[in-house]
Amino acid sequence: MTLRDDALKLHLENHGKLAVVSKVPIKTREDLALAYTPGVAEPCKEIKENKDLSFEYTCRGNMVAIVSDGTRVLGLGDIGPEAAMPVMEGKAALFKTFGDVDAVPICIDTKDPAKIIETVRFLQPSFAGINLEDISSPKCYDIECELKKICDIPVFHDDQHGTAIACLAAVIGALRFVKKDMKTAKFVVNGCGAAGSAIGRLLISMGAENVTMVDRFGALYEGIDANLDRIQSYLATVTNKEHKKGTLADIAKGADVLIGVSAPNVFTKEIIASMADKAIVFALANPVPETSYADAIEAGAAVAGTGRSDSPNQVNNVTVFPGVFRGAIDVRAKAITEEMKVAAVYAISELIDEKDLRADYVVPDAFDPRVAPAVAAAVARVAMETGIARIKVDPEEVRANTMKRVGR
Amino acid sequence: MTLRDDALKLHLENHGKLAVVSKVPIKTREDLALAYTPGVAEPCKEIKENKDLSFEYTCRGNMVAIVSDGTRVLGLGDIGPEAAMPVMEGKAALFKTFGDVDAVPICIDTKDPAKIIETVRFLQPSFAGINLEDISSPKCYDIECELKKICDIPVFHDDQHGTAIACLAAVIGALRFVKKDMKTAKFVVNGCGAAGSAIGRLLISMGAENVTMVDRFGALYEGIDANLDRIQSYLATVTNKEHKKGTLADIAKGADVLIGVSAPNVFTKEIIASMADKAIVFALANPVPETSYADAIEAGAAVAGTGRSDSPNQVNNVTVFPGVFRGAIDVRAKAITEEMKVAAVYAISELIDEKDLRADYVVPDAFDPRVAPAVAAAVARVAMETGIARIKVDPEEVRANTMKRVGR
Repeated sequence: MTLRDDALKLHLENHGKLAVVSKVPIKTREDLALAYTPGVAEPCKEIKENKDLSFEYTCRGNMVAIVSDGTRVLGLGDIGPEAAMPVMEGKAALFKTFGDVDAVPICIDTKDPAKIIETVRFLQPSFAGINLEDISSPKCYDIECELKKICDIPVFHDDQHGTAIACLAAVIGALRFVKKDMKTAKFVVNGCGAAGSAIGRLLISMGAENVTMVDRFGALYEGIDANLDRIQSYLATVTNKEHKKGTLADIAKGADVLIGVSAPNVFTKEIIASMADKAIVFALANPVPETSYADAIEAGAAVAGTGRSDSPNQVNNVTVFPGVFRGAIDVRAKAITEEMKVAAVYAISELIDEKDLRADYVVPDAFDPRVAPAVAAAVARVAMETGIARIKVDPEEVRANTMKRVGR
Repeated sequence: MTLRDDALKLHLENHGKLAVVSKVPIKTREDLALAYTPGVAEPCKEIKENKDLSFEYTCRGNMVAIVSDGTRVLGLGDIGPEAAMPVMEGKAALFKTFGDVDAVPICIDTKDPAKIIETVRFLQPSFAGINLEDISSPKCYDIECELKKICDIPVFHDDQHGTAIACLAAVIGALRFVKKDMKTAKFVVNGCGAAGSAIGRLLISMGAENVTMVDRFGALYEGIDANLDRIQSYLATVTNKEHKKGTLADIAKGADVLIGVSAPNVFTKEIIASMADKAIVFALANPVPETSYADAIEAGAAVAGTGRSDSPNQVNNVTVFPGVFRGAIDVRAKAITEEMKVAAVYAISELIDEKDLRADYVVPDAFDPRVAPAVAAAVARVAMETGIARIKVDPEEVRANTMKRVGR
């Protein structure tokens, strides 16, 4: 059996990967009278008086919608909402397994950003959060931005922020290992799509002062004559303060950290060899990275990582979204803010003590059971500190409960 | 503890009634590679070539959306989408418990029929069917009608059709008990809202030739000068062929069957006493019926029933929607047609043998484990016979599988 055969078999035999279950038994008339009519009228009446109680009295409090229009699914592109279902369903299975979040795949049959926004707005009363997924750029920016304005539950585009958080956690670990500093290190991000742009923005949020973005147009700089989307335009104003111009090969010379979210095999050995001493390379293109782990190390990188599970230092958003939503939901956060993302980055990175850091272990494993609890606790703490949380819960309780809920 | 206390406690302690679970374990890298990247790309590619495979490879094939705008919830009225959640969630729990259907509450934050229609249309790729619920009339008619035109999955407004099917199953049982005939019996339906109108339409579909609808305007007749909705206008043309005019008390005189979906206590003893010999009374207003069971019998009814579980012959849609959707989904029906509804009526009624019929047992109990399997098999059979099914399955297999799945 090949991977293809095994994957098709798994999906076919189980009729997909998700089921809905009733948490309350309905075996007697008494059960029915409490869970349905007439008893059910009581929580209805309570919620009518105070909508926030819908988070307490219904499954809404733990329910996240995974919304996609299927326009940019994995490396498969615009395959449509039906064909996007297996991915969204898989994501929901990961939400449950890693964060005990109840998530529902909502693949919607429109590509119109205004319609996507409106649909999600209408869905709000049933959910505690919205995870946007596999929506093409640049429209994903407008959709997320507008939804953040109009929704009072967290809206999080995982392809942007989940990837950025996972990547930055690995970068922080690598910087600690080579003893370089976020503020002064020279960063080059190759690929200025949803993930690359989010990585660029998060680097700036976290204090990096020397970041250069590169894409088809070469290095991004303020005033460049290129057809930029609005996030690229913003990044042009906050990165590359020296106004460097040139190709990836030009810009990567002397870089401390090179991050790829672009295309297979574009990080040649020459490019990696031209970087600074103790170079750090994260090649995150999927499934074929910008360089293999082995090639990066052979070319002189001190630390390398990819998105693949078959080489060290895997950068994987499964370390991010279950914990981020767990923490946000547990304190009923109104949004997932920049501060909460930064908290998630450090929470992941700090799971590896200084003494345990190795060149091939700068980021915790996706299956490390400490990850989601740590992320949830950190996200909850910062949400409360910054006034984004609507209820107060001890972060250590969030951590302990997550550990218990996930039971891994 | 009162019912109110118990109901609030149940909802609060369990944080609602539903959870989502992963049907596949995700404990190892190998699990992750099959359920998520890279393996998940394989079902995606298959579905991209043939959208119908989304019913096979994903949870879509067993997933129903319970859609409400919260404008007519139980007896509570327009309480809004958040406050409607406990009911929709309860419905989902019943779908699961009685039919092993995975159902998700989707309470949407718009009352605009066009927006509700559009939202449901966009949601189609994630679901095998749509159960509309607790949407006010008359807009519920337009919403359902338009959705039936544009959707190629079943759309079923349970407040109309679920109630009508459950009621007609009880009526058929009662007619069998008193040895009267559907075609010649004189029916009076009091209440011409969503449920009453659906009962009227289904009576006509099933061959009743003497039906009179009554509402605030008195008896409905063709040419009446009243502000009718479009279903009432239609019913005016197919019922009350004698153009009788008058109040409920006038019209009920000599009736064989009196059905109420109206208001508490409007079936006085005088009205019931004025009916024909061996009168049948179903008083379905909730939670306080048009007459109590005891009062109806005392006034001379041969058979009576209500929507309540604390008296005999309970008319309860839980006997209907789990089996109807189970059967429709199992043969991947494109719709739930009139023929399928009629099949459901007979399937429920026929569970009681002639010899077992009693005045206080003309309809099976909601917890009778034979109900959903019988309904599912009948609905599936008729869907196949009438070309509504997209796949073929032996109805006896549908019955046996439902029995096994529900395990009750």
